[in-house]
This record gives sequence, C-alpha cells and structure tokens, in this order.
Amino acid sequence: MKSFEQLLKEFDTHFSGRHFPESPNTLYEPAQYILKLGGKRVRPVCVLMGNELFSDISVDSFHAATAVELFHNFTLIHDDIMDKAPLRRGMETVHSKYGEPTALLAGDVMFVKAYEYLSKIQPDTFQKILPIFNQTATEVCEGQQLDMDFEQKETVSLQEYLQMITLKTSVLLAGSLQIGSIIGGASIGNQKHIYEFGRNLGIAFQIQDDYLDAFGDPLKFGKQVGGDIIANKKTFLLIHALEVASASQKKQLQDLIQANPANKVEQVLAVYKSVGVDAWANELKNEYIDKAMHHLEEIAVLNKRKEPLKLLAHFLVQRDY
Amino acid sequence: MKSFEQLLKEFDTHFSGRHFPESPNTLYEPAQYILKLGGKRVRPVCVLMGNELFSDISVDSFHAATAVELFHNFTLIHDDIMDKAPLRRGMETVHSKYGEPTALLAGDVMFVKAYEYLSKIQPDTFQKILPIFNQTATEVCEGQQLDMDFEQKETVSLQEYLQMITLKTSVLLAGSLQIGSIIGGASIGNQKHIYEFGRNLGIAFQIQDDYLDAFGDPLKFGKQVGGDIIANKKTFLLIHALEVASASQKKQLQDLIQANPANKVEQVLAVYKSVGVDAWANELKNEYIDKAMHHLEEIAVLNKRKEPLKLLAHFLVQRDY
Repeated sequence: MKSFEQLLKEFDTHFSGRHFPESPNTLYEPAQYILKLGGKRVRPVCVLMGNELFSDISVDSFHAATAVELFHNFTLIHDDIMDKAPLRRGMETVHSKYGEPTALLAGDVMFVKAYEYLSKIQPDTFQKILPIFNQTATEVCEGQQLDMDFEQKETVSLQEYLQMITLKTSVLLAGSLQIGSIIGGASIGNQKHIYEFGRNLGIAFQIQDDYLDAFGDPLKFGKQVGGDIIANKKTFLLIHALEVASASQKKQLQDLIQANPANKVEQVLAVYKSVGVDAWANELKNEYIDKAMHHLEEIAVLNKRKEPLKLLAHFLVQRDY
Repeated sequence: MKSFEQLLKEFDTHFSGRHFPESPNTLYEPAQYILKLGGKRVRPVCVLMGNELFSDISVDSFHAATAVELFHNFTLIHDDIMDKAPLRRGMETVHSKYGEPTALLAGDVMFVKAYEYLSKIQPDTFQKILPIFNQTATEVCEGQQLDMDFEQKETVSLQEYLQMITLKTSVLLAGSLQIGSIIGGASIGNQKHIYEFGRNLGIAFQIQDDYLDAFGDPLKFGKQVGGDIIANKKTFLLIHALEVASASQKKQLQDLIQANPANKVEQVLAVYKSVGVDAWANELKNEYIDKAMHHLEEIAVLNKRKEPLKLLAHFLVQRDY
C-alpha cells in the first residue's frame, strides 16, 4: 500500500506534462496556467487510493485521476469568475490575467479534456464510471448555485448549509474514491461505503475549515483568521450561533453584521464562545468523522489495506485514530 | 426517407419535455429558459438525417440529437456572456435575465446533461461517437477563441477566417451528420464523406450569411442589413475587399472603418461592388457547395436516400440541385 505522498508523486509525474495543444495559444496558455499553480491534488490521489484499496493500481486510475483534477480546475476557473476572485493560490486568477471571456472558454475546453481522459478508460469500466462522473459534475454545479443563492438569503438553516457543502465539495471527494474503487473492482456494497466515507469526511473537513477560519492559530492556518466573519459568510458557526443564541445575542450578532465595526471579529468570536459554538463545531466535526470511519470499517477488505485512507482522513481533519 | 420537417417534428416531440430536475430552480429555470426560445434545430436533425442515410432511425439518434442540441445551447449561453449580447432570438439572453454567474453555471450543467444523453447510446456505438463529440466540442471552443482574437487583430487573412468559421460553426454540422451516420452503421469511408459534406456546407452557409448581411433583401433577411459593416466585423467580404482593393480603395475602407460616418453602409457597399466582392462571394459559396455535393455523391448508398440531404443543402444555402 502506498502513502499519500507516494501516490501524489506518481500522479504528479503523470500530470505534470502538457494537456493541451500549442494552438490557439490564446486559449490553451490560460488553461495550462492554472494547472501550474499547483494544489493539494487530494481528489486525484483519492482515485488512486480508491483503486488500491481493492487491487493494484491500474493505468485507468491515472486517466480517471487526471479527469477528476481537470474537472476540479475547470470548476475553480469558473467559480473564480462568478466570485470575481482576484487571487488563487496567491497568484492571479485566470480571468484576472487573461480576461473573463477567455477564462470562461479555457474552463469549457478543460471540461471537454476531462471527458477525453475519462474515455481512455477501458470500455467496461468506463461505462460504470461515466454516470458517477456526470452525477458528481451536476451536483457540484448545483452546490455552487446554492452557495450563490445563500448570499442573497436572509437566513440559511443548518440543513440547507449541509446540503450545499455536500454538493459543492464533498461529492467530488466521494465520487473520486468511488471511481477509483470501481477500477479496483469493488462490489456495489463496498462502493457505497467508500462513497459515504468520502462524503462524510468532506463535510467534517468543511466544518474544520469554518472552525479554523474563526478559531485557528494564525501562524498555522496560513490565511487571515476571521475572514469569514469580516465577509459575513454564512458558515457552520454563524448559522448555528444564530440558531441557539438568545434574543439579545442574536440582535448583537445581527447588529455586528450590519455595522461592520473595527473590532467585529473579536466581538463576534466573543458571542460564538458565549453560546458554545466552538465546542459544538468540534462535536459536529467528530460526528462526521465517526460516520466516515464507520463506513471505512464496513468495507470488506483486509484492515491493512485501509491504512492509507485512515492517514488521509487524519491528514484532512487532523485527528488521530 | 423523411423530410427535414418530418424529422424536425419527431425531434421536437422528443426534445420539448423538461431536461432538468425542479431543484435548485435558480439553476435549472435559466437552463430550461433558453431551450424554450426555440431555434432551427438544424444540428439535431442532421444527426437523424445522418442515421437515415444508412438505415432506419434508431432511438440512439434521438439521444445523440438531444446531446448535440444541448451542447449547441450551452455554447450559445456562454458565447452570449463573452459577447455581452443582450438579445437572443429576440428575447433576453440568459445572462441578461438571470445574471452572468448563473448563466455561466446553467451552461456548465447543460454541457454535463449533453454527456448524460450521449451516454444513453448503446455502448459499442457510444465508444465510436464520444471521440467525435469531444473533438467537435474542443474545436468549437477553439473557433470561439479565434473569433475573439480576430477582434483584436488589425488584419485577418481569408485562410485564417476560413479556419475560424470551420471550427466555430462547420464542425458541429459535420460532426452531427457523422454521429448520425455512425448510428446508421456507416463505413469509415462514408463517415468521412458525410463529415466533409457537412463541413463544406457549413462554410458555404457562412459565406451566404456574410453576403446577405451586406447585400440581402431586408424584407427577406429578417435582420438589419449592414449590421456587420456597422460593427466593423471582419467578414468574408471585408477580408477579401481589403485583399483585392487598390491602394486608394483600401485607404477609403480603412477611413470608413475608423470614422464611422452616417452613410457608412452605403459607402462600404459601393467599394465592395467596385472591387467585385459580391460576385466573388457567390463564386466562393458555389465552390464550397460543389465540394459538399461532391462528397455527398461519393457516399456509397442509393441516390434516393440522399434526397433529404440535398434538400437540406438547398434549405441552408438556397440553391437548386
């Protein structure tokens, strides 16, 4: 069994070459640009891990992993256009550097390329994988739309937020694992468990991300703490705080959101702590980790094969097992 | 053999239902909206015709035709965003009505849906069709990028314009016919001929479109004559006129492009006529029609099976055969 780092290295060797022709360079340079910005490559490695949980890694997994990573980058290009984001991984976004029309089109052609790689998979396996890829792609679009819808909504329930996060981020992790498992020859039952492992792990990861944005150690977190609070983002924390706060605390939060005072982060964090949002978020995260680990346990393969996925879970949600 | 009108009716019966789920409505209403704006449905009918040239129409052709029409509408949504077009078929464009972020995403999810329909085709045939669909989709993106690039360029050669038009519009007509022919069981040789028939016909159609924009009867043409001239669009006519004009005529054209006088259309048309652009465009169009018809003749099936495609050619480029 290979570690995340080993699989990442193997994937990068496959992925680092050029994926597009030279011409027209005005279209393909922007497409290559975002791929060179790097990233954690968690999703393609999940494809490889899903495969290796059941059998030796097949060349088909590299095709699928490449398709998944290209799909992910296509969504990043388009999301950045929609969010008018100037930076991605500390560098100019594709549309900032090359203009929105070209970025839009570079995303489109990258999506086609994802299907091209997918179609290299041997036919029997490909027929099983394609519906999952299509379903996942559809759900990711739905999740992004819900996320945009939530910006316009006064209140969002925890249930709605969970659904959005599941669609926007978890299903691609889950789908990547399932696609790998299909290539590895997993039964339908095992496929369901690995999918659920990924889905629950993805939700736990997002809860942690929201938590760290508010309560993280700025030195370790690597980005501005309190960014979500400043931007009035409807996170797990804000949604829960508004649900459990007393009338006066709720008013205080709403006033802070409206008024945007200089010490807003400090004041919102004080409310979060007084209503116990921090402990709640940790509990909720652990609930989803437990669900994920339960599904991993249920997969009918030798325990030692599951080690890399346990380490992956640890890597993503920073808890020992 | 069925006529264009019969096939159009059959396709519309299949296509007129809903293609997307109800929820999230914020994403799927915009997607359904553009499909309801109608259109000539030339490409999906080409799939059906490509099939019927070789054998009875299979249900797979309706899946492929739906995929092609959804793909086409996806490109329309995205092109309209890139071109900042306010109207499409006399109605608000998707991004004008629902905002750019949602339009972008509605296009993306429509593209996934195209692949979903394509994947309903029976496996053996699907494996042959998918590379053509991917190649066509890639080329349509390349064509759109070249079109945008040309707006920034001082001069565009006839060869460059031909390449752009081929990629942006002809290959989808050609690919639709080829996809249908594969479903109909065509040999590789026959597939090549029907593809070339469609590709050349598409170019002839574009030459005619450029011609009619300048020289068409306003009553018959259905849109403002001279629109391309007013917008300084690099059409077949302008490109050729600049290539064959004398030094003084060339200066006159360039001055008209720069100065945008009130009677610009009249003056540009006068130059076009004096350098014989109108006769040249008709000749060029006929050259491409002849090439198209040559490839149709080369297809090894009974002549009577070719009648609907001859009528289609006549319908598209208005010349008797």
